Amino acid sequence: MRIDDPEVMAEVRAVFDRYEAALMANRTAELDAIFWADPRTVRFGIAEILYGHDAIRAFRASVTAYAQRTQRQVRITAFGADVAATHLEYERIGTGLVGRETKIMARIPGQGWRVVSAHVSLLAGGDPGRVMGEAR
Amino acid sequence: MRIDDPEVMAEVRAVFDRYEAALMANRTAELDAIFWADPRTVRFGIAEILYGHDAIRAFRASVTAYAQRTQRQVRITAFGADVAATHLEYERIGTGLVGRETKIMARIPGQGWRVVSAHVSLLAGGDPGRVMGEAR
Repeated sequence: MRIDDPEVMAEVRAVFDRYEAALMANRTAELDAIFWADPRTVRFGIAEILYGHDAIRAFRASVTAYAQRTQRQVRITAFGADVAATHLEYERIGTGLVGRETKIMARIPGQGWRVVSAHVSLLAGGDPGRVMGEAR
Repeated sequence: MRIDDPEVMAEVRAVFDRYEAALMANRTAELDAIFWADPRTVRFGIAEILYGHDAIRAFRASVTAYAQRTQRQVRITAFGADVAATHLEYERIGTGLVGRETKIMARIPGQGWRVVSAHVSLLAGGDPGRVMGEAR
């Protein structure tokens, strides 16, 4: 398995950028098309747990606008020719809130690159459920 | 690319279960060993943004205990022979808080299955930054 093949990286980056533009403009049909049309597709949103493309599509249809964001860091790693992980660290414009988005993309046979899993969350100031050592 | 090959699914599930047991018992060395020892490994925690295995290891060393959790749903999808996505929906015992954990596992040549990316977050009650349509 080749890691970070440059051709794969470029293909995945193009899908990543296309998704980001579609999200900011809330182009629902394009967002739906980028996600894998399959019951196994998962989207963990900030306030949503969505299993399957139908649930994700219903969510997209309910959104009238997404909070605008700027990218702080993008990290992509490609595993072999057909799967990659994309990581975005972003800031919500005008709020100071920091968010993170992980997407797993797979080259689905006969379809091309699709997002098969997404996880979005805002960074919490702290986690009261975790007991930290003195070093922290 | 074969999706959800049963042998791959079983191997990944075994790593998933081993990780969960190590986390609940805070077996730091085992957690460190399961994550890919590489600067490209990413862990987006509830209150952490960690790039690279060194940063993740430093974080592990600072934790004296993790909040205990029960599993509500586990969904795993395998893409080809060497990559899989695992999704856990969990509840923090005694708090009512719901969390989500996505892990990407890859079979690293010469090493075996490793977590190459993890994203953990608590489900928010709502997202004030997103304007919802009436349907929602």
